[in-house]
Amino acid sequence: MQPNFSRRISALQPSAIREILKAPDDPDLITFAAGNPSPDTFPAEKMGNLAAEIFEKDYASALQYGISEGYEPLRRDTAARLREKHGIGRRETDQLIITSGAQQAIELCAKVLLNEGDTILCEDPSFIGALNALRSYGVTLGGIPCMEDGMDLDALEEYLKSNKNAKLIYTIPDFQNPTGAVMPLKNRLKLIELAQTHNVMILEDSPYFELRYDGKSLPSLKALDESGCVIYAGSFSKTIAPGIRLGVALASQPIIQKMVVAKQVSDVHSNLFFQILVHRYIERYDLDEHIARCRKIYKSRRDTMSGALSCHLTSKLTWQIPQGGLFMWCKLRQGEDSAALCQMAKEYKVMAVPGSAFLVNDSLSSHAVRLNFSLPNEEAIKIGIKRLAQAADSLSV
Amino acid sequence: MQPNFSRRISALQPSAIREILKAPDDPDLITFAAGNPSPDTFPAEKMGNLAAEIFEKDYASALQYGISEGYEPLRRDTAARLREKHGIGRRETDQLIITSGAQQAIELCAKVLLNEGDTILCEDPSFIGALNALRSYGVTLGGIPCMEDGMDLDALEEYLKSNKNAKLIYTIPDFQNPTGAVMPLKNRLKLIELAQTHNVMILEDSPYFELRYDGKSLPSLKALDESGCVIYAGSFSKTIAPGIRLGVALASQPIIQKMVVAKQVSDVHSNLFFQILVHRYIERYDLDEHIARCRKIYKSRRDTMSGALSCHLTSKLTWQIPQGGLFMWCKLRQGEDSAALCQMAKEYKVMAVPGSAFLVNDSLSSHAVRLNFSLPNEEAIKIGIKRLAQAADSLSV
Repeated sequence: MQPNFSRRISALQPSAIREILKAPDDPDLITFAAGNPSPDTFPAEKMGNLAAEIFEKDYASALQYGISEGYEPLRRDTAARLREKHGIGRRETDQLIITSGAQQAIELCAKVLLNEGDTILCEDPSFIGALNALRSYGVTLGGIPCMEDGMDLDALEEYLKSNKNAKLIYTIPDFQNPTGAVMPLKNRLKLIELAQTHNVMILEDSPYFELRYDGKSLPSLKALDESGCVIYAGSFSKTIAPGIRLGVALASQPIIQKMVVAKQVSDVHSNLFFQILVHRYIERYDLDEHIARCRKIYKSRRDTMSGALSCHLTSKLTWQIPQGGLFMWCKLRQGEDSAALCQMAKEYKVMAVPGSAFLVNDSLSSHAVRLNFSLPNEEAIKIGIKRLAQAADSLSV
Repeated sequence: MQPNFSRRISALQPSAIREILKAPDDPDLITFAAGNPSPDTFPAEKMGNLAAEIFEKDYASALQYGISEGYEPLRRDTAARLREKHGIGRRETDQLIITSGAQQAIELCAKVLLNEGDTILCEDPSFIGALNALRSYGVTLGGIPCMEDGMDLDALEEYLKSNKNAKLIYTIPDFQNPTGAVMPLKNRLKLIELAQTHNVMILEDSPYFELRYDGKSLPSLKALDESGCVIYAGSFSKTIAPGIRLGVALASQPIIQKMVVAKQVSDVHSNLFFQILVHRYIERYDLDEHIARCRKIYKSRRDTMSGALSCHLTSKLTWQIPQGGLFMWCKLRQGEDSAALCQMAKEYKVMAVPGSAFLVNDSLSSHAVRLNFSLPNEEAIKIGIKRLAQAADSLSV
């Protein structure tokens, strides 16, 4: 029997770019193509001790069904941390739900807010996983150019004035994926004002918020939100570990209540064992100290990558040093399509993602390349950048 | 700002029945209202040993991102077990995906197959969690009466002949929730024939399949499926533990491929640590021996409940002894609405779910009550049934 798929899923085509990213199974391959945190940052020993304790004393509740809102003590810890440390969730009606990663926060947000045919505005380029989660509800994506200071708010304003179908603005204000851009404070305030004026919600995706290596933190959009127009999506993937699939959505109560209903029918609740474990981690250990250690590791890797690029690729590429996050965004000086470079790089056993993979219309070309510096160690970064330079040289011949 | 919710989520209203189910926080309360397995069945010690080993030696991969299809060795184990032990997945094009519980298998199936306005047929009454997952894609549910031998296939055939909008049949052929009904072999074959004739897919929800206490196992619908019309949803919740949120969907390759795309945007993948842990459990220990132990515990609880009902409630209730699963389905002899009994039961510190909670149209009344016998121990079952009898007596006055 031939299945008749839904319109929403038929529209989600695997990208041609993904073929480039299919990694050969080669231990010598160095990948800058991932978005993974480094296992060197996983607090495995402490987590192991907590797991042993839970299996011994509390398995009866930790392995049982839980509630869709999330494990109450973890919700409390997380709410307190976000509010006290970052000013996020100060409004009386703000609530939060524990999700299976920020990815699920985005998906649930789409499920409760979007109808087929709605328009969603986003930075262009942006995070493919989020764009596809939005697309999976049959919406139209409107790409707003992403500048060095993030979303182009003049272009956004034009769009909102001429297009009354916009329902949601999806943005990564801190260390945007893939560009690394940070939205300045005045732009954050302006974005919120625009959203209010045009009665459009904002989905703030904030997975890298705590991974700042230089400069001063800016308040998140949610911290600036007085009217309840911002839905905040956060993650434990970069501060604890991604394999446990834990994240958070924080928004006004009516939105969170609907997300709870949607989560209940999606997966009932997120893995309860690790919700309890992360709660105890936060209670017993110093999460800030742990995050400071992550920052130190990543800052050093970023600097190593930037140094290696300066050594080998200044004649071919330009780049900004990102103040945080996991990626460097490099542009080919001559404006060539970066797909050829990424294809050739594979021959030299190094992987990078061509910028076109992040475009709202990924059939367009891009002269940018995204390089991840969190997963490979410093030795691998140095070798990988050298190989990338060789690949670039071989193309110029 | 007032959010404008999607049509699909606006249609999902919390049921009035849920108010009855809000448990007072009273340690003396006995609940027959849950659907939980017993913590006495959780293999916590073995799981703890495996967890310690993973945290020590394999944390770098177990805490990292994984692939949306699921951890390859667990997929292999699960496919082998389903095929060799149960004949499920014998078709060359059958594939499987690891999901966050059977709930997510159902949700992903809905997401990839259903458009707003499609009609889905299901047993009436049926499992609310699945009905709501289907409803969350804006479909119309057509309830087919559930008899002692499961879905009324004459009624189904009538419906299919007169209604060309049907897209999917949702069924729990083994120990149906809430009725405990088992679909006989000839009905299974007939159901598949009807699905093929009318070009409708079948979603087989099979969480209790391995929890049979009497009689001989019947082949699952998927084991009888030659044409690829059946999508099988299974769960580790009742055979290992529900808090880890692991399940499986098995179907023809094109369907699983779309479910992988949908899962990628939903939660990227299920908790990888526990996928590895369950794989090692299956590899190292005897899962069948463990399941035999679960069956022994539950059979004894079922018999205790049935005995207590015979002692105290024969004048008020009728029931069949279910051959498996977690529930007894009892009907008030005089055909009264069971909501009053469940409401009164709370006064006597015992909780049960009125049958109306499981109806496709839950504003109708029902004279049935669902009693769970897996969670309370035998002592609690005896006391709880006595209390239920007192509640019933107090209503008759």
